[in-house]
Amino acid sequence: MSHIKRVHRKKVNRNVGDRPGVFVISADALKPVIHVYSYNEKEVVIDKGHDIKIVLAQLKKCKDHTHWIQIQGLGDANLINDIGEHLNINPLVLEDIVNTHQRPKFDEYDDYVFSVSRQLFISDGGELHNKQFSALVKSNLIISFEETYIKTFDVVKTRLQAGKGVIRAAGPGYLCYALSDVIIDNYFVLLAKIGDDLDDLEDRLYKHADKTIMYDAQQLKRSLIALRRVTWPERDKLNDILRTDNPYVTAEVKMYLRDAYDHCIQVMDMIENYKEISNSVIDLYLSMVSNRMNEIMKVLTIISAIFIPLTFVAGIYGMNFAKVDPVSNKAMPDNMPELYSPHGYYWALAGMSVIALIQVVIFWKKGWFTKL
Amino acid sequence: MSHIKRVHRKKVNRNVGDRPGVFVISADALKPVIHVYSYNEKEVVIDKGHDIKIVLAQLKKCKDHTHWIQIQGLGDANLINDIGEHLNINPLVLEDIVNTHQRPKFDEYDDYVFSVSRQLFISDGGELHNKQFSALVKSNLIISFEETYIKTFDVVKTRLQAGKGVIRAAGPGYLCYALSDVIIDNYFVLLAKIGDDLDDLEDRLYKHADKTIMYDAQQLKRSLIALRRVTWPERDKLNDILRTDNPYVTAEVKMYLRDAYDHCIQVMDMIENYKEISNSVIDLYLSMVSNRMNEIMKVLTIISAIFIPLTFVAGIYGMNFAKVDPVSNKAMPDNMPELYSPHGYYWALAGMSVIALIQVVIFWKKGWFTKL
Amino acid sequence: MSHIKRVHRKKVNRNVGDRPGVFVISADALKPVIHVYSYNEKEVVIDKGHDIKIVLAQLKKCKDHTHWIQIQGLGDANLINDIGEHLNINPLVLEDIVNTHQRPKFDEYDDYVFSVSRQLFISDGGELHNKQFSALVKSNLIISFEETYIKTFDVVKTRLQAGKGVIRAAGPGYLCYALSDVIIDNYFVLLAKIGDDLDDLEDRLYKHADKTIMYDAQQLKRSLIALRRVTWPERDKLNDILRTDNPYVTAEVKMYLRDAYDHCIQVMDMIENYKEISNSVIDLYLSMVSNRMNEIMKVLTIISAIFIPLTFVAGIYGMNFAKVDPVSNKAMPDNMPELYSPHGYYWALAGMSVIALIQVVIFWKKGWFTKL
Amino acid sequence: MSHIKRVHRKKVNRNVGDRPGVFVISADALKPVIHVYSYNEKEVVIDKGHDIKIVLAQLKKCKDHTHWIQIQGLGDANLINDIGEHLNINPLVLEDIVNTHQRPKFDEYDDYVFSVSRQLFISDGGELHNKQFSALVKSNLIISFEETYIKTFDVVKTRLQAGKGVIRAAGPGYLCYALSDVIIDNYFVLLAKIGDDLDDLEDRLYKHADKTIMYDAQQLKRSLIALRRVTWPERDKLNDILRTDNPYVTAEVKMYLRDAYDHCIQVMDMIENYKEISNSVIDLYLSMVSNRMNEIMKVLTIISAIFIPLTFVAGIYGMNFAKVDPVSNKAMPDNMPELYSPHGYYWALAGMSVIALIQVVIFWKKGWFTKL
Amino acid sequence: MSHIKRVHRKKVNRNVGDRPGVFVISADALKPVIHVYSYNEKEVVIDKGHDIKIVLAQLKKCKDHTHWIQIQGLGDANLINDIGEHLNINPLVLEDIVNTHQRPKFDEYDDYVFSVSRQLFISDGGELHNKQFSALVKSNLIISFEETYIKTFDVVKTRLQAGKGVIRAAGPGYLCYALSDVIIDNYFVLLAKIGDDLDDLEDRLYKHADKTIMYDAQQLKRSLIALRRVTWPERDKLNDILRTDNPYVTAEVKMYLRDAYDHCIQVMDMIENYKEISNSVIDLYLSMVSNRMNEIMKVLTIISAIFIPLTFVAGIYGMNFAKVDPVSNKAMPDNMPELYSPHGYYWALAGMSVIALIQVVIFWKKGWFTKL
Repeated sequence: MSHIKRVHRKKVNRNVGDRPGVFVISADALKPVIHVYSYNEKEVVIDKGHDIKIVLAQLKKCKDHTHWIQIQGLGDANLINDIGEHLNINPLVLEDIVNTHQRPKFDEYDDYVFSVSRQLFISDGGELHNKQFSALVKSNLIISFEETYIKTFDVVKTRLQAGKGVIRAAGPGYLCYALSDVIIDNYFVLLAKIGDDLDDLEDRLYKHADKTIMYDAQQLKRSLIALRRVTWPERDKLNDILRTDNPYVTAEVKMYLRDAYDHCIQVMDMIENYKEISNSVIDLYLSMVSNRMNEIMKVLTIISAIFIPLTFVAGIYGMNFAKVDPVSNKAMPDNMPELYSPHGYYWALAGMSVIALIQVVIFWKKGWFTKL
Repeated sequence: MSHIKRVHRKKVNRNVGDRPGVFVISADALKPVIHVYSYNEKEVVIDKGHDIKIVLAQLKKCKDHTHWIQIQGLGDANLINDIGEHLNINPLVLEDIVNTHQRPKFDEYDDYVFSVSRQLFISDGGELHNKQFSALVKSNLIISFEETYIKTFDVVKTRLQAGKGVIRAAGPGYLCYALSDVIIDNYFVLLAKIGDDLDDLEDRLYKHADKTIMYDAQQLKRSLIALRRVTWPERDKLNDILRTDNPYVTAEVKMYLRDAYDHCIQVMDMIENYKEISNSVIDLYLSMVSNRMNEIMKVLTIISAIFIPLTFVAGIYGMNFAKVDPVSNKAMPDNMPELYSPHGYYWALAGMSVIALIQVVIFWKKGWFTKL
Repeated sequence: MSHIKRVHRKKVNRNVGDRPGVFVISADALKPVIHVYSYNEKEVVIDKGHDIKIVLAQLKKCKDHTHWIQIQGLGDANLINDIGEHLNINPLVLEDIVNTHQRPKFDEYDDYVFSVSRQLFISDGGELHNKQFSALVKSNLIISFEETYIKTFDVVKTRLQAGKGVIRAAGPGYLCYALSDVIIDNYFVLLAKIGDDLDDLEDRLYKHADKTIMYDAQQLKRSLIALRRVTWPERDKLNDILRTDNPYVTAEVKMYLRDAYDHCIQVMDMIENYKEISNSVIDLYLSMVSNRMNEIMKVLTIISAIFIPLTFVAGIYGMNFAKVDPVSNKAMPDNMPELYSPHGYYWALAGMSVIALIQVVIFWKKGWFTKL
Repeated sequence: MSHIKRVHRKKVNRNVGDRPGVFVISADALKPVIHVYSYNEKEVVIDKGHDIKIVLAQLKKCKDHTHWIQIQGLGDANLINDIGEHLNINPLVLEDIVNTHQRPKFDEYDDYVFSVSRQLFISDGGELHNKQFSALVKSNLIISFEETYIKTFDVVKTRLQAGKGVIRAAGPGYLCYALSDVIIDNYFVLLAKIGDDLDDLEDRLYKHADKTIMYDAQQLKRSLIALRRVTWPERDKLNDILRTDNPYVTAEVKMYLRDAYDHCIQVMDMIENYKEISNSVIDLYLSMVSNRMNEIMKVLTIISAIFIPLTFVAGIYGMNFAKVDPVSNKAMPDNMPELYSPHGYYWALAGMSVIALIQVVIFWKKGWFTKL
Repeated sequence: MSHIKRVHRKKVNRNVGDRPGVFVISADALKPVIHVYSYNEKEVVIDKGHDIKIVLAQLKKCKDHTHWIQIQGLGDANLINDIGEHLNINPLVLEDIVNTHQRPKFDEYDDYVFSVSRQLFISDGGELHNKQFSALVKSNLIISFEETYIKTFDVVKTRLQAGKGVIRAAGPGYLCYALSDVIIDNYFVLLAKIGDDLDDLEDRLYKHADKTIMYDAQQLKRSLIALRRVTWPERDKLNDILRTDNPYVTAEVKMYLRDAYDHCIQVMDMIENYKEISNSVIDLYLSMVSNRMNEIMKVLTIISAIFIPLTFVAGIYGMNFAKVDPVSNKAMPDNMPELYSPHGYYWALAGMSVIALIQVVIFWKKGWFTKL
C-alpha cells in the first residue's frame, strides 16, 4: 500500500548543561560524503572531496569560481570543526549544523550567513522523514549540510551543468535560493501524495468504510501537521531574508525569493485545506459509526419487539395448567379452555399474526424501515 | 437535484527543481481563444484575434484607444512567450499566468501591474470549480487570462458597448476593476446558491432527516471553505491595491475598489455566518441520531422488560414437574400444585397482568413514554 | 411561547456586473414615509413631507435650524435619486442606502458623512430581524433611512420635543449619535430577551429536558451570532468615528460616542458570556442524553440478565425427555429425574431464586442501582 | 456542601433612548452608608458621614489630610447628584457609578480620574456575585463606591490605622491602588476555592462518578469564565494606568501597580489552567459514561449470547411433536427420537454445556472479560 | 511504571490585603542551605555559607572575583530580609523571591537585575513539580534562589571548576544565562520523557487498549500544558532580555541568549506537536470505544436476531393445543396437525434452519461479519 505510514519522531540528543557551542555527534549519524562543484559562467568543475582541509585551502585560491561544497552525512566531528576553524565560524552555528532539530532560520554574521531548512520526504518504507538542510554562504562559497545521502539536489546539479538560466552567473546566494526552492518544491510533491491519500480515503469512506479510516485520517493529519510545522518557520525565514540588506541577498535573488515565498504561502494554504478535508472525513466516519449503530439497534429492536411478545403468547399456551387432575381425575374446565377449542390453534396463530402486523405497521410508520 | 456536489480538486503540476520562470503547459489546458476590444469614449471596435504577435503590433500603433485582449484558454506556450517578449514581461509573471494555482495577489512592476483573482462557479454537473483569472495592465492595454471559455464577462462587454457610465473613459485600471467586481459579484451568486442549499438542508433536517444530511452539510462546509480560501487573499489584494501609489490605480478607481473591498468583507461575513449554520445543522443532526437511538432503545427496553419476566412466568408453568410418577404412579402433590388448581390459569394470567401493569406504571413515571 | 424563533435570512439582491452606483429597488421594499423635524434651541417644527424635492429646497433656506429628515421605507428609486442630485451625493453611497446589506461603517466625503448601523429587533411573530439604518449628515441636515416603519426613535423625538439636555443645541452630529445610541440600547433589550430565554432553557434542562432544548439552544446561539456580527463592526465604526477629525464630530459628540463605545463592548462581553452558557446547556443536554441511554440500557440489561437465565432453567424443565417410552413403555429413569422427585418443583424455584439473588447482588455491587 | 452554586446573573436596567448621563436607581439598590477616613502621616480621623454635602464642604477646608469617603450602597440618586455637583463630575461618570455593569476601566478627566473594578465573591448561599467597585480620585480625595456592605476593605482600614508602610503618606492614588490590590487578592481567594472544588471533583470522578460531576464541572467553568471576564479588562485597565502621565499616578504608585499587574497575569494564567483541568474532567467523565455503557452492553451481550441459544435448544426439546398419534395411536418414530433415548437428557445437557463453553472461550479470547 | 503521575498543584499562600512587599514564609518551605562560589579566570573558591550577613560582608571586599551565592530552600525570612538590607533590594523583589508563583520575568532596577524562571522536574514518585528559580545579579555578584535541594546545577559547577569555555571570565550575567540554559535543557529532558510516554501510549492503543489510556493521555496533556505555561513566559522573558540595554547583559551574553531563545521556541514547537499527538490518541481511543460498542452490539444483534425467531417457532410447537379433549375425548384434528405428522419434527427443524440461513445471508450481505 502506498500510504504514508508514520511520522518518524527523532529524539533530541542534548546533554543537559553542555557548554553552548559544544556538540555531540549522534551515534546514528552517517559518514560524511563530500562533493565540490566549482563553477563560473564558462565552466563547471566537479570533484569528490576527501579531506575538507585540503578542499578549503584549494578553493581559497580559486577566486573566479563560485564553489558549492555539498556535505551529505554529519557523522564526523572533525570535519565540522575543521570548517569552523578554516572559515572562522561561530561555535553556536557549528552546534546548529550538527544538532539537527533546528527550525528553519536565517542568521547573519559578519562575513557569512547561515540558513536552515527542513527536508521532508517519504522513505521507501512509507515513513515521513524530517531532515535538516543547512547552508553556510560566504563571498564565493556555499557549503551545504544534509543528514542523508538522498539525491534531492540532482536537478540543481543538472541545471548547473547545463548552464541554462542565471544559475552559473548569479553567485552563492542564488545557489542557496535554488536549493531551498527544490526543498519547497518537494513540499508540493508531499502534498500531492497526501492529496492522493485523502482521495483514496474518501473513496474508501463512501465504498467500504472500516475502522482503518480513522487511523489513516489521523496519520494524514499528523503528516500535515509535520508539514505545517516546517512551512510556517520557512515562510518566516524567507520573510527575514527578503527584509535583510545583506550583500549576499541581491535584488535579483530577492525577486526569486519572493516567488518562493508565494509558493510557501500556497503550501500553507493547501495544508489548511487538506486539514479541513481530513477533519471532515473523520466527522463523516464517526457519524457513519453512529448510524451503523442505529441500524444495528433497529434490526435488534424490530426483531425483538416482534418476536418477544409472540414468544410470550406461545409460552402462555405452552403452560401445563391441567384440565383434568391426574390423581383425582377431577375436570377443571376453567384451566386454559382455549387449548381445548376445536380451532384454538388457528385462532392463536391468527392472534399472533395480528400482533406482528400491528408492530410492523407501527415501525413502518415510525420510518424505521427507511430513514436516518 | 441542485446541490453543489463536490469541490473540484486540482493537482499542482510542478516539476521539482524547475528553473524559476519556466512553465509547463498542463495537458488538459484549453486552446486559447482571443477577443480584442479597442475602445475610447467614441467607439468600441471588437475583433477576434488569431495571432497574438500581429494583434500586439497593431495595438501599439493605436494609442488613442484602450485595448482589452481577452484570452480564454491557456494551452499554448508560444502565445504566453510571445506576450512576454513583446511586452517585456518578467518570466516569473508568465509562470504565474500558466501555473493556475496562484492566490489572489497584486504585483507591481516597472511599467505594468499584474493581478490574480479566482473565479468560483458551479459547472453544469454541480461541481464547484475554482479557476484562475489574471490580468496584465499596461499604459493603454489590459490582457486578461482565463482558464475556461465561460462567459462571465459578457455583462462587462454589454456595458462597454452601451457606453454608459465611466467604463469607456476610465482606462485599463478601471476595466480591470470592473472585471474583478464581476468576479466578486459571482461570489454572491455562489453564496446565494449555498444559502438555498442550507435552507433546503434545514428543511430536510426538520422533516425527514436521513444520513445524507451529514454528507451534504460537509459538502457545503467545503464549498464555504473554498470560498473563504479565495475571499481572504482577495481582500488582502484589494487592500494592497488601495494602498499603492501606482499610476494605473487612479483615485477614481480606488473609490470603486473601496466599494469592492466592502463587498469582499460582506462575502466573508456571510461565509462565517453560513459556516456557523452548517455547524449547527451538523450538531442538530448528530443530536437527532442520538435521540433516535434513545427512542429505539426505549422501545426495545420497554418491550423486553415487560415481556421477558412474563415469558419467564409462562416458562415456569410450562415446566413438566410431574404430579404423578408415570412409572410408579406415585402421586407427588408438592410438584406444581398451581397447575391443578381449578382457577390456576386465571390466577396466572391475573398475576402476569399485574406484573405488566406495574412495569408500565414505572416506565410511565420515568417519563419514557413521552420525554427526551 | 415567547422564544425567538428564527433568524430571518435576507437574500442579497444584486445583479452580477451591474455598474457600481446603480441600484435595484427590491420588490418587497416599503413605500417611503417622510417626517421632517426642524429644530433649534427655541423651537421644534414637525412636518410630514410628501415631495422630497420641495422639502430639500425649503430646508436649504432655513439655515438657523437643524433638520432631521426621517425616511422610513426605501421602495422609491426617485426619492433616493432626488436626494443624490440635490445634495450631490456619490452614487456609491446611494447604492449603499438601498442595498440594505451593508455592515456598520462610517464614510467621510467632502461635505457630508455617511454612517450605517444595523437595527436588530424581534417581530411579533418571534422572528429576529436585522434591518439597515443609514444616515447622511451635512452642515445643518441629517437624513436617516430605515427599511421599516417601526417606531424605534420615538424616544428621541420625545427628547427633541421636551428640549431637555443638549439635543436641541448640539447639531446633526449629536442627533446621529442619539439615534445610534438608541440602536445600541436596543441591543441590550435583545440581550435581555435572550438572557430570559436562556434562563428558561436552563430551567427546562433541569426540570423536563426534551429534545426541543437542542433546537432552542441552537436558535439562541444563532441569535447571539447575528448580534455579534452586528456589534463587532459597530464597535469598529465607533472607533473610526472617535479617531476622525471630521468637523461634524465635535469633541462633545466624541465624549458621548466614547460612552456608546463602552456600551458596545459591554454588549460584546455579554454575547460571549451567553454563548458560553448556551454551549454549556448543549453540553449538559448531550451528556443527559448519554446518561439517559445508560439508564435505559441498565434497565434492559438488569431485567434481561436476571430473567434470561431463569427462563432457560424453566425451559430445561419444560423439555419433554420421556421417562417412559409411549410406544414400548420402556422406563428411562435417567431422563429428567428432577421432574419426578417429590420436591423437584420447590428445589427448582429455590435454585432460580438463588441465581436471581446472586445477580442482584452483583449488579448492586457494581453500583448499577444507584450511580452514574 | 461548599461548592459554588450558580453565577448570579444581573439584568441590565437601562431604559432605551435615555439621555446619556441620566441614570435610574435600580429598585433593589441598597441605602448608602458613608464612612470618612481623613489621614495624614500623623493621624487618622474616622467619621461616619450622614449628609454628603456637609462632608464634602468640611473636607475641602482640611487640605493637609487625604480623605477617603467610602460609600456602600448606591440606592440614593441625590447622593450621587450632590457629589456630581460639588466636585463638578461629568454626568456620564455618575451614570457609570450607578449602572453597575461597567467593565473595569480607567478614565482621566481634567482634575480627577475615575476607575472601575469588579468585586467577585461568594455569598453565604454559595452564589458567585460580581459587584462593581468604582472610585473617584481628586487632589487629596478619594471617593469609593460599592454596591454592597461587605467588609472587603477592613484590611486596608487596619493598615491605615496601624500606619505601617507608605499607605498614610502616599496620597489618594496609592489608596486607590491599595483597594484595587485587595480586590485582586480576592480573586486569588476565589481561585483557591475553585481549585479546591476542582480537586474535590477529580476525587469524585475517580471514586464514585455520577452525573452531578457534569453539572458541577460546567458550574466551575462558568465561575472561571466570570472570573476571566473580569480579569482581562482589569489587566487592560492596569496597563492603561501604567502608561498614563496623570499626576495622581506617581512613579511610586506605578511600581506597586506593576506588581498588581503581575498578580493579574498570574490570575489569568491560573484561570486558563483550571479551565483546561475542568475540560479534562468533563472529557474523562464523558469517556467514563461511554465505557460504562460498553460494560453494560457487554454484560447484556454475554448473558444473552450464552443463554438465548441454550434456551432455543431447550425450546426444541419442549416441542410436542408426538411419537404416538393420540387418536389413531399410530407410532411416529421419526418425531423427536432424542426424547425417547435412555440418556437423551444427559446428552442434551452436555450439548448445551459445550455450546456455552465455546461462547465463553470466544468472549474470553475477544478479551470481553477484561479489557476496554 | 514510569509514567508521569500527576501535576503537583500548589496553593497560593497570600493573605488578602497584605502590604505589598510583605511576605509570608509558607509552612512547608525548606531550611536554606547556602553555597558560595567565588571565581575568576585563575581560581574557584568554594565555601559553604552559614550566616548570610558575614558572607555578603566578606564578598564586598573581594572585588576581583565573581561570586555566586546559591541558596536552596527559602524557609528563613531573616535570610531574605538580610539580603534585602545589605544589597538594598526592593521589598517587592523580596516578596517575589518568597512567593514562589511568579511567572518567568526579567525586571531591571537601578543597580541590579532580577530574573525568574520555572524549574520543571519529575520527582521520584512520578509527580511533576514546578518550582521557582530566581536570581539577583549585581556588579560582580549573583544570588540564586531555589525552592528545593535538587542538584540541577551540578553540571554548571563542574564546568566552573573545569574552567573550560568562557564561564570563568564572563561575569555574573553569563553565569545567570548558564543557569537558565540548564533549566531550559531540562525542559528537553522532560519533553523526551513525555515523548516516551506518548510512544508507550500509542503502543498500548494499538495492542491492548483499555480505559487507562484516556486517563494517561489526559495526564500527559496536563504535563504539556504545565510545560507550555512555563515556556511561553520564559520566551517572552528572554526576548525582554535580548532587547534590554542593561550593562549586565553584554553582547556576548546576548549571543548565547539568542541560542537559548531558539531552544525555547523548539520546546514550544515540540509541545504543540505532542499536544496534537495526545489529542489524536484520545480521538482514536474514543473511536475505538465506539467501534467496540458496535462490535458488541453486532454480536448481540446477530445472536438475538437468529435465535429469537427460532425460539418462537419452538415455542409454537411447544403449545399444548389438544388434539383430543381429555374430558370428552373429542378429537380436534385442526389443533396443531403438524405435531402429528410423521415427519413433522424434521420439517420443523428444516424450517428453522432455513430461517437461520436466510438471516445469516442477510447479515453477511450487510457486511456485519467483516467491516466497520
